[in-house]
Amino acid sequence: MAALNLAKLPTRAPADYHKTTTLRELKKLRQELIDLQDRLYAENKHSVLIILQGMDASGKDGLIRRVFSGINPQGVRVFSFKEPTEMELSHDFLWRVHQQAPSRGMMQVFNRSHYEDVLITRVEGLITAAEAKRRFTAINAFEKLLQQAGTTVLKFYLHVSEKEQQGRLQERLTDATKQWKYEKADQRKAGQYPQYQAVYEDVFHHCNPGSCPWHIVPADQNWYKAYVVARTLRDALLKLDPQYPGN
Amino acid sequence: MAALNLAKLPTRAPADYHKTTTLRELKKLRQELIDLQDRLYAENKHSVLIILQGMDASGKDGLIRRVFSGINPQGVRVFSFKEPTEMELSHDFLWRVHQQAPSRGMMQVFNRSHYEDVLITRVEGLITAAEAKRRFTAINAFEKLLQQAGTTVLKFYLHVSEKEQQGRLQERLTDATKQWKYEKADQRKAGQYPQYQAVYEDVFHHCNPGSCPWHIVPADQNWYKAYVVARTLRDALLKLDPQYPGN
Repeated sequence: MAALNLAKLPTRAPADYHKTTTLRELKKLRQELIDLQDRLYAENKHSVLIILQGMDASGKDGLIRRVFSGINPQGVRVFSFKEPTEMELSHDFLWRVHQQAPSRGMMQVFNRSHYEDVLITRVEGLITAAEAKRRFTAINAFEKLLQQAGTTVLKFYLHVSEKEQQGRLQERLTDATKQWKYEKADQRKAGQYPQYQAVYEDVFHHCNPGSCPWHIVPADQNWYKAYVVARTLRDALLKLDPQYPGN
Repeated sequence: MAALNLAKLPTRAPADYHKTTTLRELKKLRQELIDLQDRLYAENKHSVLIILQGMDASGKDGLIRRVFSGINPQGVRVFSFKEPTEMELSHDFLWRVHQQAPSRGMMQVFNRSHYEDVLITRVEGLITAAEAKRRFTAINAFEKLLQQAGTTVLKFYLHVSEKEQQGRLQERLTDATKQWKYEKADQRKAGQYPQYQAVYEDVFHHCNPGSCPWHIVPADQNWYKAYVVARTLRDALLKLDPQYPGN
C-alpha cells in the first residue's frame, strides 16, 4: 500500500460545495438511509459496520447525530469504545471489539474502535513497533472475517486540521454546553497532533487493503463531513441492494 | 504442512504402557496440575486454552472428568459448543467462540470448538470447499491472536478407531446410564466415519502450524488418553512456569 501523507490531504470541502445546498443534499440522503436501513433490517442478510476514527475534537459525536438521527434505532446501534476495563485487558485486544460486531440486518457504528489499540497505545508508548505490526495483521484478518460473514465494513477518518482542533478544544473550555467534554487529557493531546498524525499514517499504510479501504473525510466543516459519510454509507447500501422478503 | 493419514496413526497405547501404572502416573499428574493451576491463577499473566475435538463417542466428556476433576473450578471453565443459535448464526462463525476465550490466569476447556465449523458443516455439505479454506485462514489468525495475547493453545484430537466407536455407540443404546447421550443423529454419524476422517485430515493439513500444532491422542483406551492429555497440559504449564506474585 502506498504511503499516505495526511498533511497533503484537504481538511475542508472542495470549493464547489456550499453549505446550504450540501445540507439540502444531506437531508435527502438521510431519507434514503431511512429507507435503505429498513430494507437491510427486513432482508436480514447483510450487516454494516461503520468505524469512526479521528483525533480529539474531530467531531465524531456530532457526526453520529447528524447522519443517524431519524433512522429507526431498532436497526442501528452505536457503541463508544472507552478505556478498556480490567476484564477486557485480560484478553486479546480484539476480544471486546468482536462482541460488538453487528448481527445480520443491523447497522453498527463504532465511535472509536480497535484502531485505538494501535494509535493511543503507540503515542503513549504502551506497545512496541513489533507489537503494532502483529496487531495490524490481526486487524486485517478480523475485518476480513467480518466481510466474509456478510458485513460491509466502512472505515472513516475524520481529518481535522491542527488549527481547527485547537480552536475546538479551546471552545470546550468556554462553552457551557461543551465543558462536559473537556478532559485534562485534552490539553496534552492537543500538543500531540504530529504524533497522532504519524501513527494514523502508519495505520493507513498497514490496514488499508483495496477490499477494506479507509475513507479520509475533510472534517473542518461539520456539514461537509456529515454529507460525505452519509453519501458513502448510502452508496454502500445501494450496492447491497437489500430487498424486502418475498419480493 | 505435510499430509497426515489418520488411518496410519495408532488408536491404542504403545505396548510398554500398562493400565495400572499409567493410572498411577495420571494421579500424580493431576496433583501437579492442581499446583500449577493455582500458580497460573495467582500469577494472572498467562492463560491456557484446551481444545478437545474427536468424533462422536471418542470420549471427550469422560476425558474432561478424568483430567480436570480436583482442580479448583474457580480457575478452570469448560464450555461445550452446541448447535449455534439463531443469534450466533447471524454473526461470523468465530463470534461466539471468541467470547469464550480465557482471561488471564484461567484455563478454558473447549468441548468441541470452532473446528466444528469446518467439520460437520463440510460432511453435511453446508459450506463449500472455498468457504472452508477461508475459514482455515481465519482460524489460524484467530489462534495466533490468542497466542500473542499470552494464551497457550493446546489442540487435542481424540483418535478413536471405527470399531471402538461403533461399540460405544451401541452401548449408548443398552446402558441405562448412557442412554441420555444417545441421539438419533448418532446412527447416521456412525456411518460417516470415513467422511469425518477426511475432513479432519484436511484440518490437520491447513490448521497445524508449528507454533500451534494438533496433538493426535490414541483414544480407544480411556486411561491412556487421559494420561496423554494431562501430561501434555502439565508440560505446557511447566513451560509457562507460573510464579506466585512477590516471589
